[in-house]
Amino acid sequence: MQPSQTKPETLRQPAYDIDPVFIQRWSPRSFANKDVPEETLFSLFEAARWAPSANNMQPWRFIVARTKEDLETFHSFILPGNLAWCQNAPALAVLASATTTERGDNRAHAFDAGTAWGYLALEATRQGLVTHAMGGFDREKARAALGLPDDVEPQIVIAIGYRGEKEALPENLQEREQPNGRRPLNETVFEGGFGKVIDALK
Amino acid sequence: MQPSQTKPETLRQPAYDIDPVFIQRWSPRSFANKDVPEETLFSLFEAARWAPSANNMQPWRFIVARTKEDLETFHSFILPGNLAWCQNAPALAVLASATTTERGDNRAHAFDAGTAWGYLALEATRQGLVTHAMGGFDREKARAALGLPDDVEPQIVIAIGYRGEKEALPENLQEREQPNGRRPLNETVFEGGFGKVIDALK
Repeated sequence: MQPSQTKPETLRQPAYDIDPVFIQRWSPRSFANKDVPEETLFSLFEAARWAPSANNMQPWRFIVARTKEDLETFHSFILPGNLAWCQNAPALAVLASATTTERGDNRAHAFDAGTAWGYLALEATRQGLVTHAMGGFDREKARAALGLPDDVEPQIVIAIGYRGEKEALPENLQEREQPNGRRPLNETVFEGGFGKVIDALK
Repeated sequence: MQPSQTKPETLRQPAYDIDPVFIQRWSPRSFANKDVPEETLFSLFEAARWAPSANNMQPWRFIVARTKEDLETFHSFILPGNLAWCQNAPALAVLASATTTERGDNRAHAFDAGTAWGYLALEATRQGLVTHAMGGFDREKARAALGLPDDVEPQIVIAIGYRGEKEALPENLQEREQPNGRRPLNETVFEGGFGKVIDALK
């Protein structure tokens, strides 16, 4: 850990005992110029694969880019604001979700894909990697570039790699290069009905 | 662990090195007659709170039930097939997502709620609890019973507790009381385009 890299734990304090990995995981924008070993990269998808899903339908599909050619294709559908930082990530992945199954529409496809993304991000943290998900990409361009079937919907693009120096970022992004906070738990968890605050919550 | 409780690890083998918690987490239906201590219950929501979300909008909202009265309210909107097993869970939680923010619609609300659910389920596993998410509930009844605002959409009901004996389940559910498998990784992760298989994947 370099001096220019803030440790998440110094900015985030959990209110209850949880696995430290939840606090350690955050979404930096600076990526080191360092490739991700194949076995390590695959382990992230392996963690995602074991996510729970409605009727175990596993709607998640990942399309990864790690060659210069594939990365350039992915860059072509990422919006400029994100491309400014994610162009240095050694791997990108589109997470898409299958909106139907043989039995009809899957109403939980986006929700379940979100669970898989969360598991990927946690395993990445455990392996010393960082991830950053983006919704800012051109979905129609992505659909065309990746040959997505009509019933497969792109959800996010994930940048994957090792954390870089803050100073390597464009200046306007340097001050944002630290973990963000969260809404208090008593505005997030209610009891018995919506908005009914739990007094015991820290 | 009782003889009638299969260990997930004996039925599931990860193809790549991942945190064992991903394999250990699964969705049993039998719950022991044992309350969840408050601090433990709150830690699950604490883990969920630190999930990533689009622009850190944190669309997840949880409404928990742990008193007899609240549990009965929740039971009133759960469909019979799920109620058959989840009525013994000492805690239930509806996970709902805010579909809008002050800045307009949040297209990622369901996806991000799915991430938060995934974190809750992992922390539960770490704490020796089990969870089981259900999509099988009457959404309009839930909306009315919980007083959900129009822009808050119920996603799942989560049963939370300690694992019970398989034999405590209705007979037709006993044979299903074991961890399920997953689609192979090479049908889940592609490279460069949809359907382009990665040969190196185990």
